[in-house]
Amino acid sequence: MNQTDAHLDAIKFDDQGLLPAIAQDAITKDVLMVAWMNRNAVAETLRTGEAHYFSRSRQALWHKGEQSGHVQHVIEVRLDCDGDVLLLLVDQVGGIACHTGRSSCFFRVLQGQTWQDDLEVLKDPSEIYKDD
Amino acid sequence: MNQTDAHLDAIKFDDQGLLPAIAQDAITKDVLMVAWMNRNAVAETLRTGEAHYFSRSRQALWHKGEQSGHVQHVIEVRLDCDGDVLLLLVDQVGGIACHTGRSSCFFRVLQGQTWQDDLEVLKDPSEIYKDD
Repeated sequence: MNQTDAHLDAIKFDDQGLLPAIAQDAITKDVLMVAWMNRNAVAETLRTGEAHYFSRSRQALWHKGEQSGHVQHVIEVRLDCDGDVLLLLVDQVGGIACHTGRSSCFFRVLQGQTWQDDLEVLKDPSEIYKDD
Repeated sequence: MNQTDAHLDAIKFDDQGLLPAIAQDAITKDVLMVAWMNRNAVAETLRTGEAHYFSRSRQALWHKGEQSGHVQHVIEVRLDCDGDVLLLLVDQVGGIACHTGRSSCFFRVLQGQTWQDDLEVLKDPSEIYKDD
């Protein structure tokens, strides 16, 4: 074990080697998204200063914004009391975190017993992912 | 299936019947904690207006603040694009969300390669959990 990995060793990954990571806008403090990280994703995030997650569907490292340009510059990294959730304070490039073209993935709010979308689509997803 | 459960049916639980729920302070917008909910915990949260989680260690419904008095009044409930993470905007009674006596569970910030505590202990845990 490398001495420089002590900060990574403090992080508790689950039995699949993952932990949830919250991205929060460093300025507005809006919660933008939650994704998963493995140890390598955390290491790459810290090395590059840009959020990297682990895509469970693709089972691969995912550099957020690689395709869309909507990268997240990491301002601050926080760990919770149990060491099993990370909180990233980020500068969200383009102001769009969600693949739907909205600022945040949490665009559905419960009103009575109905989920209502209350965040506008800032950019059409077909314009965001031109290579898809 | 009850018609009134449609809003619960929109929520995607994992293969253990759980999903992560973020509690965010409705005023300061600080992220306070992340815990897990099963369908019953969501239903109880909505029914009572106070956050209920599912304790994975105790494998039981957990009414946050039941012992400590630090209940969370739920102001707003949000669901993400994938339907597999909930975001609760809460009024945190006592201003203490963490069992360590701090305002937030995310009290460790990465400075260089060291996790530094930067939130003060507002109340000694032994004073919070007198029955333990």
